[in-house]
Amino acid sequence: MLVNRCTRTIEWGDCDPAGIVFYPRYFAYFDDCTGRLFAKAGFPKFEMHQQFDMIGFPMVDTRSKFYIPSRYGEEVMIESTITEFRRSSFDVHHRLLKGDDLAVEGFETRVWVGDDPDNPGGIKSKPIPDAVIRAFQQ
Amino acid sequence: MLVNRCTRTIEWGDCDPAGIVFYPRYFAYFDDCTGRLFAKAGFPKFEMHQQFDMIGFPMVDTRSKFYIPSRYGEEVMIESTITEFRRSSFDVHHRLLKGDDLAVEGFETRVWVGDDPDNPGGIKSKPIPDAVIRAFQQ
Amino acid sequence: MLVNRCTRTIEWGDCDPAGIVFYPRYFAYFDDCTGRLFAKAGFPKFEMHQQFDMIGFPMVDTRSKFYIPSRYGEEVMIESTITEFRRSSFDVHHRLLKGDDLAVEGFETRVWVGDDPDNPGGIKSKPIPDAVIRAFQQ
Amino acid sequence: MLVNRCTRTIEWGDCDPAGIVFYPRYFAYFDDCTGRLFAKAGFPKFEMHQQFDMIGFPMVDTRSKFYIPSRYGEEVMIESTITEFRRSSFDVHHRLLKGDDLAVEGFETRVWVGDDPDNPGGIKSKPIPDAVIRAFQQ
Repeated sequence: MLVNRCTRTIEWGDCDPAGIVFYPRYFAYFDDCTGRLFAKAGFPKFEMHQQFDMIGFPMVDTRSKFYIPSRYGEEVMIESTITEFRRSSFDVHHRLLKGDDLAVEGFETRVWVGDDPDNPGGIKSKPIPDAVIRAFQQ
Repeated sequence: MLVNRCTRTIEWGDCDPAGIVFYPRYFAYFDDCTGRLFAKAGFPKFEMHQQFDMIGFPMVDTRSKFYIPSRYGEEVMIESTITEFRRSSFDVHHRLLKGDDLAVEGFETRVWVGDDPDNPGGIKSKPIPDAVIRAFQQ
Repeated sequence: MLVNRCTRTIEWGDCDPAGIVFYPRYFAYFDDCTGRLFAKAGFPKFEMHQQFDMIGFPMVDTRSKFYIPSRYGEEVMIESTITEFRRSSFDVHHRLLKGDDLAVEGFETRVWVGDDPDNPGGIKSKPIPDAVIRAFQQ
Repeated sequence: MLVNRCTRTIEWGDCDPAGIVFYPRYFAYFDDCTGRLFAKAGFPKFEMHQQFDMIGFPMVDTRSKFYIPSRYGEEVMIESTITEFRRSSFDVHHRLLKGDDLAVEGFETRVWVGDDPDNPGGIKSKPIPDAVIRAFQQ
């Protein structure tokens, strides 16, 4: 499966009075990495919307485990990959590394959605296009 | 002029490793207070969009001065008022108080905008409706 | 077990271009609610540090499930309770409600930590004081 | 005067329901750029604390002007420089560019502070060390 790696330097404003990253910020980091992973596969967010008549892939379930804290000015590397595609949902796994050490793990389950033809303004899960799934199987 | 007052308890995630509010958060507090000020005047954001065929009042210039820091768990009070209406822009003044002490001041200049009829997808400044200005002169 | 309820109005800056709460913000809401739950039990964060010679209760594992999105200006209610105390860790459950509907659930596992006597500057898990556990069993 | 340039890709979570960067986030960008500017001058934040017996340079006054909005996925470049050093305070100017266009300007006034010998736990402005001022005059 395709893997995206991106580095990031911890910002002062990401950290809390304990001097370490305020953990909700890790979820924002991981959300950004999922967008970059799809862009790497050839599907930047807005182009994907037009190409596939989809609206997005909202999060339905996400979890993180925290092993080692990070502080202002430290550089971390995040590896992201899709661990499973189902008919209209998929799982993403993020590993945030400090050097060789696994510092934080993130898990996401997202649903592929488009407009709901039976409910104007509403959304409905849709099958993930084969072209998308194939692009990740490199 | 109409004044809105709202209280707010400083959250852990609003504070930085120095233990005090990370100052960009004050701008978020003030943005929220401007929305509440308009709601108090009878114009909640989304209803205003429909009533006046406007899109919003984006910020064009904002400034804050910081006198006294605030920490996790402290309660502050923010007083907000409009200091001037011009044809299509207006100024907001926020005073964040700790007890009787002025801790932070915020200043905003915003522009009233709607769709640009000559440029589909674009925006254009529009005159602020008299009904809006009157509602603040209480 | 003690339950804390707090209401919160969704802010513009909490929402993303899809018009709904950017989900990392829910984790910040829940973090704040855990602090309020302990305060309600009689243990505001900073006083607890002094009373029990502890440093904090960092997050080790957290998860959220998202059922119904929320938008700018909506009021939500968050119910928080501790579901289990172990020797030096505990679990918190948050239920974010829109009216009677469960919109988001949050789950946290946190560890009670103090200074590590064998490692200056380091932290170490410590037994949760009985007085804390008793205060929640109301 | 020394200039620091850094590029940044706008994240989904930086944007609001209008689809553009929520302006408090620009202040967080600029804060990060001031830290990077000092690091480029040879003074990373934590080392500076030890080298000069200082605590930090808290913000006392900041302002931004917004000319062109930015959206998710766009890359911007921020140029940062110090425009004036005074005895114990200094001004920073940030220019956020989209291609050749100036999109946002930021202005900061910060004060150099250390421990207050007459007030344990308090802070006091201190003269900016000559070595710091010289490092920027390249």
